[in-house]
Order: sequence, then structure tokens, then C-alpha cells
Amino acid sequence: MSNVVVVGAGLAGLAAARWLVARGHEVTVVEARERVGGRTEGLVLDDGTPLELGGQWLGEGHTRMYELVGELGLSTFRTWNDEGKLLLDLQGKRSTMKPHKGAVPRLSPFALTDLAQGLLRFARLAARTDLERPWLTPGAEVLDGQTWETWIRRNLRTAAGRAYFHVACEAVWAAEASDVSLLHALFYTHSNANLDTLLAVDRGAQQDRVTGGSVRVAEAMAAALGERVVLGRPVRQIAQDDSGVRVIARDGSAYRGDVAVVTLPPTLAGRLEYDPPLPSWRDQLTQRMPAGSVIKTFAIYPEPFWREGGLNGQAASDTGPVKVTFDNSPPSGRPGVLMGFLEGKEARMWARRAPAERREAVIGCFTRYFGDAAGRPEQYLERDWMAEEFTRGCYGAHFAPGVWTSYGEAWRAPAGRIHWAGAECAPRWNGYMEGAVRSGEATAETVAAL
Amino acid sequence: MSNVVVVGAGLAGLAAARWLVARGHEVTVVEARERVGGRTEGLVLDDGTPLELGGQWLGEGHTRMYELVGELGLSTFRTWNDEGKLLLDLQGKRSTMKPHKGAVPRLSPFALTDLAQGLLRFARLAARTDLERPWLTPGAEVLDGQTWETWIRRNLRTAAGRAYFHVACEAVWAAEASDVSLLHALFYTHSNANLDTLLAVDRGAQQDRVTGGSVRVAEAMAAALGERVVLGRPVRQIAQDDSGVRVIARDGSAYRGDVAVVTLPPTLAGRLEYDPPLPSWRDQLTQRMPAGSVIKTFAIYPEPFWREGGLNGQAASDTGPVKVTFDNSPPSGRPGVLMGFLEGKEARMWARRAPAERREAVIGCFTRYFGDAAGRPEQYLERDWMAEEFTRGCYGAHFAPGVWTSYGEAWRAPAGRIHWAGAECAPRWNGYMEGAVRSGEATAETVAAL
Repeated sequence: MSNVVVVGAGLAGLAAARWLVARGHEVTVVEARERVGGRTEGLVLDDGTPLELGGQWLGEGHTRMYELVGELGLSTFRTWNDEGKLLLDLQGKRSTMKPHKGAVPRLSPFALTDLAQGLLRFARLAARTDLERPWLTPGAEVLDGQTWETWIRRNLRTAAGRAYFHVACEAVWAAEASDVSLLHALFYTHSNANLDTLLAVDRGAQQDRVTGGSVRVAEAMAAALGERVVLGRPVRQIAQDDSGVRVIARDGSAYRGDVAVVTLPPTLAGRLEYDPPLPSWRDQLTQRMPAGSVIKTFAIYPEPFWREGGLNGQAASDTGPVKVTFDNSPPSGRPGVLMGFLEGKEARMWARRAPAERREAVIGCFTRYFGDAAGRPEQYLERDWMAEEFTRGCYGAHFAPGVWTSYGEAWRAPAGRIHWAGAECAPRWNGYMEGAVRSGEATAETVAAL
Repeated sequence: MSNVVVVGAGLAGLAAARWLVARGHEVTVVEARERVGGRTEGLVLDDGTPLELGGQWLGEGHTRMYELVGELGLSTFRTWNDEGKLLLDLQGKRSTMKPHKGAVPRLSPFALTDLAQGLLRFARLAARTDLERPWLTPGAEVLDGQTWETWIRRNLRTAAGRAYFHVACEAVWAAEASDVSLLHALFYTHSNANLDTLLAVDRGAQQDRVTGGSVRVAEAMAAALGERVVLGRPVRQIAQDDSGVRVIARDGSAYRGDVAVVTLPPTLAGRLEYDPPLPSWRDQLTQRMPAGSVIKTFAIYPEPFWREGGLNGQAASDTGPVKVTFDNSPPSGRPGVLMGFLEGKEARMWARRAPAERREAVIGCFTRYFGDAAGRPEQYLERDWMAEEFTRGCYGAHFAPGVWTSYGEAWRAPAGRIHWAGAECAPRWNGYMEGAVRSGEATAETVAAL
């Protein structure tokens, strides 16, 4: 039996702790915030409606999450999808289409052929990536030596085909195709089945939501862990020697264990003070795994009025600044909650503007997509995940070009008694709640066997 | 008159402090290490010979550094260069050539044409970059959307031509062409005049050295600042409010001022605890400015025996692992000091190996280049700059693709009362001692005018 200090009470940290406690190990989970859930977070409106400020979806293939939701006595419901058509705002033209798996918009025959060929080529490349060791993928050097943007420019000939890939990149990574290594885009896509699955609602990664909000998963795990979870203690320092680890928070409180499991996003894990200092290869890796850029916005209406107009509340735009929206209303359908993402460059630019300006731009998009009724929300809310001191960006970290092939070996390698877990450490379902839970449990199993 | 707390006693921090003190401002310089100099560092051998473990060269255009060296009563001497020929180890073939400006090796006519055209194309693009605002360079989006590697593959047709650019990238950035944005490669090249200047010894960036070692510049500035420089106090936290800043070190000692000037490498500046937390745009920028990867190695011999063989101690290899060497002997020419760099991928890989293995590989290269006599050094030394807790990589930070165009505005923008300086903040001579000093002085002027 060992004594484990887990840093971070997000899904990975709590899943690791739960796994260890169930097998008789001693565990303390040290969390910076006064709440659990990490990149999942709940907020309850005055009328009792739960909002999800962070990660919110379960979908195709997320078997461990569905299981866990059941184990915790929670339930899921379908993402609003079939109540109307999808709204497209592409190259300045507004159109609608039926929602279906792997949504491909109506396009000219030329653009459609271009897009279909591009998707096929990308899918073939993605299917060949090595999920456990992406840097050993055949041709890894060449794939990792270029941005996804370079690949898009070479393989897509039409503006519409390129726009599709750009919107996909922003929607999946909250980053620009210029930021991301082609090898990483391929790895991540294969890790999450394929691009269709990543983008789809039904039978895709956006299929279901947790009743009451995704944060309930973390809250239920934390409740069972009881006093093992210590809130409001930002970890500052991790010391290790032959006898064990010592995890020290900003207020000086210290937690001793045989091993530590650090579940922070990579860029934050790299900021702690380690004694002895981390080896070169680990430190330089986390210098190179920046978090994505997203501001999640919400407008609350008495009801989901867009359904009257035959729309399902989902928009996809290549103009933006809000390029993707969803109907985030609760299962009851009241109130109507329109949710929109400012992603990638839009998030970076709009984070610098005044809140009132940003609200106007977001509501302006909602109005452009869903009509004048969208201009008069009862409430407007937003969460800039880049500004969150204990997250510093969502949805997750990405690998810039060259990083997988130079630092791949360091990806999940422990540094002495310090082990790593989190959505970024998962070979399967990387970046998702599913990946976070699987990674937490896998690392728990590793440290239990030490 | 204001009261300024400078974080970091490298060249930028000390130059800023010196500038401010000369104009009657109150200054405290808070330094993590028990020494000054940052990425310049000295070591004295038993026989009194000074070694330079970090940055060491001044050259063409570094006017402020030459001036400063004079002001401080120091002197420079020429890098050993004309004592023999340059050794080339390209594509498995060993050859020699006369040292000259912008060293281009002897190649087949086809490869030479290819390389000449590539260099010309690169020089033309570089000359067009906007040094104050690289993100406003014409075509910035396209230039920043690709790696330098992508450009090299497209523009160089021969293996020799590509190898030249690859060795240049490793030598200048201690990074791979896959890691670096093309726009950044162009900006940096233009910032440092051109690729010839960057690579050359005579009339280039490697022309001169400081007698007694480059660290003497920092030491002389620090000596004049006296007790204003506080050593051994790693800064952990910077708080600011309407009344001023409070800089707090790990041991709890605190330094109050009207403004702070943070001169740490970007990736380390991003690790401090800021109260209030830094805005989104600044935090996400420093997540995306990783430091280069280099291990600097030295072998000490009774004398520079390579000169007997008609060689000047400089080698350029596309095989490595040591791909670049220099004769780092002191002005007296005794002892003979051979210096070699493990850069980019080689540094990342060799940092993980045992010291004895690494020594063998390095000495193996020296022997391959300069003969059996190189196999019996009196002493072998090395400095892994990635492992240094208060540096975490050299020579400097680079911008990955997409970063300049998304975060350029955040590059040198102060965050409230916190201002930034350092080699990475310099529009001219970015990455060099010259850039560090100019940036320190420019930021000092800015905060003095507040």
C-alpha cells in the first residue's frame, strides 16, 4: 500500500484518487481552487438552471465516462440537435442544412470534390499514427516538421475546402492551423477516432451531456473522497528524495507521500518549483505545450426561440468572431441557452477588448445567425479560460511543430517519484473528459504497482 | 524620480539598473543566483584560464556592447580564426576551406547554385520584415503559418543546400528548423543584419570576445551598483496595486517599488506568481516562447595542437552530434581550449544520456575533426543550459509558427506596473548580448519617463 499525493482535483486527479482509495491506498488530493472539476465548472442561474462554463460533452467511444456517470448515480441527456436545421454562415452566405454525422456543408461540385479528397487524405494519414508513440509514426519527421496549415494549403484547392478545415481546427483545438504540428493534428484526430467523430453531435464527441452539468462527475467523486480532497491550496513546490515526496502549497501547508501524481495542464505543471529541479527534457517539453485559446459565451433567453424558426441553435461560420454555437438549454428546454465559442485567434484578440465590446460582438453574431430575437438576451455570461490563473487556456494543450519528434519520449515519463496524468497524457481520447479519466486511472495503476 | 525593482541580474537587468542609477533613480536588482551575468557565466580553470560557459561573442554592429566594454574599462580580443583552415565534415566527407565572411563551403556547381539561390531568396524575404512589429510584415500570415523547415524543403533542392540551412538554424537558434516559424527566422535574421553576419567570425557575430570572459561586463556593472544588487533571492511573486509593486523572493524577502522591470527569459517570466494574475494575452505568449536547446562543451589541451595541422579549430558538421566547434583558447594561446556545441535535437537527446557517454561522444567528434591528439584532453567540461533552473535553455527563446501573428502585440507590452526587458525584447540584435543591453536601457528609459 502506498501513500499518494495527487495535485489537482480535476477529472484526472479525482479518478486517480478514487481508483487508489478503492484499492486501499492512502491519498490526498491538493487543489488550488475552492472548487473541484478543473476544466469542468458549473454555474447555477437564479432560476436554478445549471450552466457548464467548461468541458461539457460525452460522446461516441467515451465508454469509461458513461460507465463512471452510471457508477456515480448520474445520468446523461442528448445534446439538442434534432429540433431544427444547422445554420451555415460561410463565405458571407447564410444557408441551412440538416444535422447529421460529420456535417459537410452543401457546396459547389468543385468545392465538394476538393473537400472530400482532402478529408479522405487526412483520414488516411491520421489512421496511420502511432497513438502510444506518435514520434515513431512512419514519416514522423516530415509530418512533424510542418504546420497543419501548410498541409491544408497544399491539399485543399478551394476557399471552401480550406475554410472547412480551419473551422474544424478552431472548434477542436481552440487554436489555429498555423499553431499546430501536422503530426499532432493527425495523432489527436486518430486518438479521438476520426474527424467526423470529433465534429459530430449524434454519434460524435458532442452527443451527450451530464444531467445537472458535467461538473457533477467531479463533485460526486470528490464527495466520496471526503476529507482526502483539500481545496484552496495552490501547490507551489514539490520536493522529492529517497524517502518520498513533499508537496507544499502557497500557504505553507505540506503533504507527504511516497509518490506524487501531478494532473495540472502541462504549462502549469511546468511552473511549479521542483526540488531537485526537473530534468532538461521534461522542463523543455512543458515549455512547448501551450494551451488553446477560448472564451465560452452564453446568452440566456426565456425560451429557445430559434426552434420556432426551424433552427437547432447550431451555427458554423467562417467569419465569426463567434464561429461555432450550440443550443445549451437544459433538458426541460427552458430557459433557452445559446452558447458560442470565441476560439483561437478570435479569443486572443477579443480577450484584449473591453467586456461591453465583447458582449456586443458576441450578441451581434447570435443575431446574425438566429435573428433579432437573439439581440435581447435576459442575461449574458462568459468565461475566458486563458485568464484563469489555474488553467490558462482550454480546451487543452497542443504540440507545436517539432515537439513530438524531439520530446515524445518525455511525454508521460515520470521524473523520479513524480508521475503525470491528465487529458493531455491520454493516448486514446486525448483532450477529452474521457482521456482525463482514463489517464488518471492508468497512472493510479502505475503508481500502485511501484 | 522613481523607485524601480529589477528582476534578474543578467545583462539586460544590470544595464537597466545602471542607466537608471546614472539618472538618480532608486533601483534594486533582485537575482536568483549567487552570481550575476544570467546567460553569461565565467569559470576559472586551475591555471587561471577563464572559460565562458554561456554567451561569449561580440561582433559586427554590436556598437552598444563595444561602447559599454570601453566604459567599464574592459577590452576585447579577436576570436581565433586566421590560424588555419576551417574543417568541414559534410555528408560524410572531410574537407577544409579558408575562413571568410559568410562561410559557404565548396560544393558541386549544382549544389552551389541551389544554395546561392536559396540564400538570396531568404535574404530578400528577411530584409522585408518589420523589426518593430514583425506581425505587420507584408504576407506575415503566410510566413508565420509555416515552419522554416517547410520553406527549406520548398526552396532548396539539394541535400547540401538543405544541410547548410539546417546547420545554420542549429548554430543560430539551438533549435531545429521544424521548431521555428519562418517569420521568426526572417525577423531574427534581419534583426541581426543578415545570415552572413549571424554565421561569420570576422565582420560577423562571432568576431570578438571580452578579455577575461564576457561575464566581466555583468560583474563590472554589478560592482558599480554595489548593494543595489541582491543575490541568491529567486523571485517567486510580483504583486501590484495602485500604489506600486511588491517583489517577493522565495525566502520571503520583499522589495517595494513604483514599477518592476522583469528581465527573465520569457518562459521563466511566465512562471512567477502574479497578483493580480497576468492578463490572458501575456500569459499565453510566454507559454509559446520556448528556449533553445544547447549543451556547451569544452576540452582543454596543453596547447592548441590543431594549429600545427593548419586548422583554426572551427568545424562545421552535418553529422555531429557536435556540429560546430571553435578555438576558445585565451589570448595567450595557452592552454588550447576546444569548444563544441550540442544543439537542438542533439542537445535534447544527449541531455538524457549519462555524463560519461556524452563525454565520449563529444571527444569522439573532436577526434574525428582534429585527429587523435583531441582524444586526450587534460580536462573536459560542459554546461547543459536546459538543466539550469534559472535559465532553462539557451541561446534564447524562439517563436513557434503562428505566435508572432497571434501574440505580437503582447511582445513588449507592459502589464500594469510590470515592464519587460531582455535579449528577447530587442527589435535590433535580438537574442544577443547587444540586444539584451539595448533592451535593458530602452526599458529603463520608458519607466523613467512614467
